[in-house]
Amino acid sequence: MQNRLKGVWAAALTPQKADLSADTAAMVAHHKWLLANGCDGVALGGTTGEANSFSVSERRELIDAVQAAGIAGDQMMVGVGCCAIPDTVELTKASLAAGYGNVLMLPPFYYKGVSDDGLFAAYAEVISRVGDERLRIYVYDFPKMTGLEISTELLVRLNDAFPNTIVGVKDSSGRVEDMLAVCEAIPGFGTFAGTEQFLLPVLQAGGAGCISATANVTCAVSAAVYQAYLADNGDGEAAQERATAVRLMLQAYGAIPSMKEAMAVHTGNPAWRHMRPPMVPMATDAAAKLAGDMAALGFTLPLAA
Amino acid sequence: MQNRLKGVWAAALTPQKADLSADTAAMVAHHKWLLANGCDGVALGGTTGEANSFSVSERRELIDAVQAAGIAGDQMMVGVGCCAIPDTVELTKASLAAGYGNVLMLPPFYYKGVSDDGLFAAYAEVISRVGDERLRIYVYDFPKMTGLEISTELLVRLNDAFPNTIVGVKDSSGRVEDMLAVCEAIPGFGTFAGTEQFLLPVLQAGGAGCISATANVTCAVSAAVYQAYLADNGDGEAAQERATAVRLMLQAYGAIPSMKEAMAVHTGNPAWRHMRPPMVPMATDAAAKLAGDMAALGFTLPLAA
Repeated sequence: MQNRLKGVWAAALTPQKADLSADTAAMVAHHKWLLANGCDGVALGGTTGEANSFSVSERRELIDAVQAAGIAGDQMMVGVGCCAIPDTVELTKASLAAGYGNVLMLPPFYYKGVSDDGLFAAYAEVISRVGDERLRIYVYDFPKMTGLEISTELLVRLNDAFPNTIVGVKDSSGRVEDMLAVCEAIPGFGTFAGTEQFLLPVLQAGGAGCISATANVTCAVSAAVYQAYLADNGDGEAAQERATAVRLMLQAYGAIPSMKEAMAVHTGNPAWRHMRPPMVPMATDAAAKLAGDMAALGFTLPLAA
Repeated sequence: MQNRLKGVWAAALTPQKADLSADTAAMVAHHKWLLANGCDGVALGGTTGEANSFSVSERRELIDAVQAAGIAGDQMMVGVGCCAIPDTVELTKASLAAGYGNVLMLPPFYYKGVSDDGLFAAYAEVISRVGDERLRIYVYDFPKMTGLEISTELLVRLNDAFPNTIVGVKDSSGRVEDMLAVCEAIPGFGTFAGTEQFLLPVLQAGGAGCISATANVTCAVSAAVYQAYLADNGDGEAAQERATAVRLMLQAYGAIPSMKEAMAVHTGNPAWRHMRPPMVPMATDAAAKLAGDMAALGFTLPLAA
């Protein structure tokens, strides 16, 4: 098996200017802050990064920006999955050309009620068109957003057909039993929980770690889980309990607006609240409630951003 | 109110070559066949046209092809709704530049659980960025595919804010009561049922007609409903009964593969079966069953294609 990525990954936010263009300087600074504060890597252009609200050419600019900033290939996973195969292929090639062979790939997500044969055909078509042995695909399974289920059987089938290319999954189903089933079915597969809530059990089952929206702010408390697991020092359960408490508090608010609100408060920079429709910033009262919930848990973000 | 479109519209299929590029010559020929056989207009680049499986530049080529073929502005509605606002804006501008001011616009459909404020903001942002008084938007409400609900209240709000721009809806909810509620709430609005099954009740409630996937093959039987309604000759109910029977038979098969299969058989051209993943052609046994069901209803496609 070819997965080499491990640990705590943030599905990074995309800071934006007032005109809703990406603020790539702020984005790269945020990535570096995450990497300095507990994240093993950054997923660029995932759901939390509002990637599907950006055009392909805009997304290529984000890839170019992280490359120019010198973020290493083993610290970067690039979201590339679009509805249209030509778009997915273009983004994947651009990622590879920038030195980022690890990609996070949604299935084509417009159509629902699609067969496993259809989903398999979509991944196979992309792999064939990209035609690059350096490619490492992490299947992005997020049923709430895609309306599609990526079954364990389909992952096994994809990994069997493309053992050096389909090397992992980000499982954002919220169902830990599904994650553990994949860990068992495909030893060595890069199984990432889509939430730090299930980081420890997934690691214990042989999985790779987590890639999480809320890791944009929980990086340090999530890293404590991973470090305790690596050290095997008996602190894992307590660290997981803490990470889970913070995660569950945050996720009740919906990831993107609440993460951007938290970063705006943390950095003192209101520009963090910019986001593209259909996302809208938190209302003032909800933001105040979030601040109260964070204080009640004694949760603060690490260091100055 | 500014809706001027009426009658039976097909959400047209997109014929493809073996490499899955669009066969624009075959596409334009299909459009002309539809217009010659009962369709009042053609929706280019809807769900049935696999539009979201094509890149923005590919979709612009489709627009250019219908323009080059001389298809009239009042016979064409162009699908333009993407996940990313810049893509929707680019396609909308391209459509307008080609002389097609009537567009069918999905809301940004990746994110679920989105507020009405967020959906309103998305349409408002597109209208502002396009900045063209010739624009006529038909909101595309297809909850099964988008996972989003466009409520009557949201349509009223959009029409109130943009009375000359947001002029209609394609309601593919499958709920006739929703369609009738919109007809009542916004007199003169271009309310199109997403299925010929509800063509007559929507027309009788003051709606505009239907835009339907299955109209790719039911064009003539659907047109019979509209013509009977216009003539007010008492034949409407019987025509509707016939159209409904054919529609319900067809829709049980899933629109795209079954419509392409029917066209392949009708034209004798197996290239009609080409489609992009995640869509896959019908299995042979399902295709045989479809042919049997069509025969059992005595249903054939009109004329030679």
